[in-house]
Amino acid sequence: MVRLNEVRPGELAITLPERPDAEVYFIGTIRTPWTDRLTCPRQGRTDGPTCRIELRPPFDKGLDSIAEFARLEVLYWLHQSRRDLALQSPRSDGNARGVFSLRTPVRPNPIATSIVQLLKVEGPVLFVRGLDCLDGTPLVDLKPDRTLFEPLAPAQAGDFQIGDAS
Amino acid sequence: MVRLNEVRPGELAITLPERPDAEVYFIGTIRTPWTDRLTCPRQGRTDGPTCRIELRPPFDKGLDSIAEFARLEVLYWLHQSRRDLALQSPRSDGNARGVFSLRTPVRPNPIATSIVQLLKVEGPVLFVRGLDCLDGTPLVDLKPDRTLFEPLAPAQAGDFQIGDAS
Repeated sequence: MVRLNEVRPGELAITLPERPDAEVYFIGTIRTPWTDRLTCPRQGRTDGPTCRIELRPPFDKGLDSIAEFARLEVLYWLHQSRRDLALQSPRSDGNARGVFSLRTPVRPNPIATSIVQLLKVEGPVLFVRGLDCLDGTPLVDLKPDRTLFEPLAPAQAGDFQIGDAS
Repeated sequence: MVRLNEVRPGELAITLPERPDAEVYFIGTIRTPWTDRLTCPRQGRTDGPTCRIELRPPFDKGLDSIAEFARLEVLYWLHQSRRDLALQSPRSDGNARGVFSLRTPVRPNPIATSIVQLLKVEGPVLFVRGLDCLDGTPLVDLKPDRTLFEPLAPAQAGDFQIGDAS
């Protein structure tokens, strides 16, 4: 069962810094069939249900040319997750692991990434498969899948740098 | 050449919302050979130079078990990027595309994702290959590469949901 707000045996809660370091804009909202964390998939699947990604103005202006890509990387904000558990016990069995060795929604910066199949684009709305999040989850970013994208900008020196200088 | 602060022909600057929606903690700092945006690689490469990812306390507590993974997904904050260009012209040739069809550092939420090879872990420091960012770039998150990770938590109903209800 997913976590609601409990701290389980073996887990470690840390004290988060008093002040944050940067700020995020929610650029849209994700619509999925899941309204309860207890029924959400743990990970998206490419044959999963169709979900909608709705951009809000003025960010919808950035969707130009996106239909060229069959797959997108989606970043979203897991707005119901606590942020302070550095060690977590996914099975509630006393065995805990570091948050950075898990893809748990509970993390210092609750940002998830998924790769989705892009089915169609209608104005500011994308129809996709492969998401795993709650209905109403805030959208943070969209990018072409890295395996489908080649930079358009001219090359730079670092592009050719391999290994380590001795 | 990468953008410094110019707006190029064909590009569209939008007015960002007055207030942000969420806040990010910088959980560490990335050390790379690149100190100037004009020499950074456009994308990381698996045979590129060794870079260091230095976690800051108390977030280093979350590194437990991370050495099990040969590849990690790294999220970082592109702190020198402007955020308001919805249409961009990577070649400065008058042709512009939406920001979400590019992997440009200039985006409403300047968060990059890379897949890196994990070489070793020494206390709060990871040694990796595959990054493309400036020395001093703030770290936002680390996750196991999605292709290497299986959820440990018990299954939920959504895990088995395919297609669309009619």
